[in-house]
Amino acid sequence: MSRFFVTLQKKIPRLALVTMASSSSSYVNGNRNCHGDNPQVKRAKWVVPSSRMAKNTHNPIRQIVDNMKIEPNPEKKMIALSIGDPTVFGNLEPPREIEEAVIDCIHTRKYNGYAPSIGYESARAAIAKYYTRPEAPLEAKDVIFGSGCSGALDLCISVLANPGQNILVPRPGFSLYKTLAESIGVEIRHYNLLPERGWEIDLDHLQSLVNEDTAAIVVNNPSNPCGSVFTKEHIQDILQVAERLRMPIVADEIYADMVFSGHSFHFMASLTTEVPILSCGGIAKRYVVPGWRLGWVLIHDRHGAFEAEVRNGLQRLSQRILGPNTLIQAAMPRILEDTPQSFYEGIMAHVQRNAELFFNGVSKIPGLTPIMPCGAMYMMVGIDIDKFPAFTSDVEFTQRLVSEQSVFCLPASCFQYPDFFRVVLTLPEEMVSEACERIQEFCAQHYMEEIAANGAF
Amino acid sequence: MSRFFVTLQKKIPRLALVTMASSSSSYVNGNRNCHGDNPQVKRAKWVVPSSRMAKNTHNPIRQIVDNMKIEPNPEKKMIALSIGDPTVFGNLEPPREIEEAVIDCIHTRKYNGYAPSIGYESARAAIAKYYTRPEAPLEAKDVIFGSGCSGALDLCISVLANPGQNILVPRPGFSLYKTLAESIGVEIRHYNLLPERGWEIDLDHLQSLVNEDTAAIVVNNPSNPCGSVFTKEHIQDILQVAERLRMPIVADEIYADMVFSGHSFHFMASLTTEVPILSCGGIAKRYVVPGWRLGWVLIHDRHGAFEAEVRNGLQRLSQRILGPNTLIQAAMPRILEDTPQSFYEGIMAHVQRNAELFFNGVSKIPGLTPIMPCGAMYMMVGIDIDKFPAFTSDVEFTQRLVSEQSVFCLPASCFQYPDFFRVVLTLPEEMVSEACERIQEFCAQHYMEEIAANGAF
Repeated sequence: MSRFFVTLQKKIPRLALVTMASSSSSYVNGNRNCHGDNPQVKRAKWVVPSSRMAKNTHNPIRQIVDNMKIEPNPEKKMIALSIGDPTVFGNLEPPREIEEAVIDCIHTRKYNGYAPSIGYESARAAIAKYYTRPEAPLEAKDVIFGSGCSGALDLCISVLANPGQNILVPRPGFSLYKTLAESIGVEIRHYNLLPERGWEIDLDHLQSLVNEDTAAIVVNNPSNPCGSVFTKEHIQDILQVAERLRMPIVADEIYADMVFSGHSFHFMASLTTEVPILSCGGIAKRYVVPGWRLGWVLIHDRHGAFEAEVRNGLQRLSQRILGPNTLIQAAMPRILEDTPQSFYEGIMAHVQRNAELFFNGVSKIPGLTPIMPCGAMYMMVGIDIDKFPAFTSDVEFTQRLVSEQSVFCLPASCFQYPDFFRVVLTLPEEMVSEACERIQEFCAQHYMEEIAANGAF
Repeated sequence: MSRFFVTLQKKIPRLALVTMASSSSSYVNGNRNCHGDNPQVKRAKWVVPSSRMAKNTHNPIRQIVDNMKIEPNPEKKMIALSIGDPTVFGNLEPPREIEEAVIDCIHTRKYNGYAPSIGYESARAAIAKYYTRPEAPLEAKDVIFGSGCSGALDLCISVLANPGQNILVPRPGFSLYKTLAESIGVEIRHYNLLPERGWEIDLDHLQSLVNEDTAAIVVNNPSNPCGSVFTKEHIQDILQVAERLRMPIVADEIYADMVFSGHSFHFMASLTTEVPILSCGGIAKRYVVPGWRLGWVLIHDRHGAFEAEVRNGLQRLSQRILGPNTLIQAAMPRILEDTPQSFYEGIMAHVQRNAELFFNGVSKIPGLTPIMPCGAMYMMVGIDIDKFPAFTSDVEFTQRLVSEQSVFCLPASCFQYPDFFRVVLTLPEEMVSEACERIQEFCAQHYMEEIAANGAF
């Protein structure tokens, strides 16, 4: 043994080495108790349990859909209106410019290494510049990248809430809030959206849910699954409530700027000088590339409410998985600059046309009540379930719609909102009328006005 | 209000709507107690606390390095041997073939959408085929993608350990285990590696750390920061211990196959029929693309120990952020197939040559003891700190090495192993002798044989 190792051994206490009474080879001789009198556990069966975190991680959509019988009518081609992925029909494609931007980044060979865990400075500066507003200024330091908007939401929920605390989330609402929160032991409390008011938040209900363990309010605008877009006035009302409660907001604004003509999108942060807001966004929907997994948190904090802990906490948490793919990060400045305005307009014009076609088609169907969206890429349709005695729930309704008509709409039980279903509006235009006709035929076969009337008494 | 909404309101109990006593506009009138007699908390100051999870997320490397004065000598060009990123010097580049594979995937426009959260079936099948061994067979279902190997390790630690439990990790060892575990309230216990035995595990020490709360053993082979590669016999010894303790293993095998000529790499799973193993890997190091963030967990479970809970738990946890970038996933089959053998060999020959040069250079320096690696891309060098009276620690030693010689080596305190430093061996060959000369000059200026001898009494 060299002199160095002799010296090293002298320092054993410093390295906190543990000297064992048993011989150094005892671990290979097969004796059960060779390792001294430690309270070793000899597990009786070689069955490894999973953690509570794993057990508490639920995907409500998968739980419902995986238990449905999705067997389309073999005589009709499947029309899947169920998946919130604008790429599935193949009719919507990302702008060529952003593909070129990524390819150029590959060719430079400068973006293969680790980026800072919160993201490249240049990419964060580009996001800040693009999304800064006079009323809600942003700098590069206010942008933190995540692995998709899901990753950004994970950062926000994880930084704000402790196990045992709760966050308020919309009903109907995107199920990932539940997945992320319950996974780390955070309770979710659902505040109601009001379909008759264009899915505005029932702010009285929201306030009734707040207690001393409430850590944040999650607001999703434009909304999945509703396709609603809040007016300036409604956002101001929400902010007043948050301000009075001193409650930070997690604004899920992944559908930012995706609104129909005649409607305006307002970042929540642009309408308050007081409420600290973490705004989550990403390129998934607007650029039709959800698989690229680039999302971000924008820190809006005019009065330093996040300064003592939250800003630093986000940076710490970003070190767990070291940020999203660097090629996409590096392409961000050009993704924002080079995408022509006509691309955004083309996508939303398409979605709006489909929304109008679908709304008009479904409005005529007895037993269904579509609620016209103003943005995003979804529409909710109410089912007057009492008029369909063959079905006891939206899950049964949509399941049979697949088996008879090969049209798959997502039962809104997936969004904690029974007796509705959600349709995705990114499909090719010619499929919309076909889908409407099939839904009409299906409803005509199962709708029973009289029985419903009788059943009411 | 339409008939539908009237019907909907009748169902209020079903949707668990809460009827409020206060008027629907009370939330905008500014009254502090407008929302009834709920125990609302009016926070006195608008300061938002961060979660315990955020506070408990530490990056030991950043904590140490950020507190060091890294001010190079302006007269000497900086040689940074500190960063475990093979791209930083620009001399190592990924194989052209894998860049083409990704670019082709972009052009097809088929891989922009969401993949299943555990990854594309085709990509997982390709990984399984590539890494399957007769002794450790793999199928697509045994592969789960994560966001980089960091993401894969996060999945493994999160699925196996509960808050309050502990996992065993190597010292010296990669600091991310600590970051990930402590972040979710899991304790880490360091078992010692033995430098005089080529960094083999002190299995007696390891066993002394196990208690009833121990959930798993993390084994890193080849090792960061040691560059060690375990022999078949040593792996078998580790496995015997794990088998007797009925303890699952998380094998961090991100440096799999990255060994010097004359050495062999063995997957832990290929040497056991009994111990269930989660093997973590990725493309970061072997293909010189750490920023691409593609990693995976390989589930090795010949007797179903993971079947009841862990396999499903990994799938559940993967739903939190929905997997890594789809373009890279889609390119995986070609990344594995098209990369020529000469590429792998070229990288490792380069690292080995640097290791030998560096080892020979530093071996001659009084006060330093390099430990020759057998693989990965690192070397550990012991500092006989008593012989350098100007410095009380590896942190001070390496800090001064920067300010005087502009050579930055990472103090091994970052790996919980004081009085060593780690060098990265991916630098251009011509920089190795320059670095050695500067380190030699530095040591010659600060080494004091006599004082050390006096100090010993």
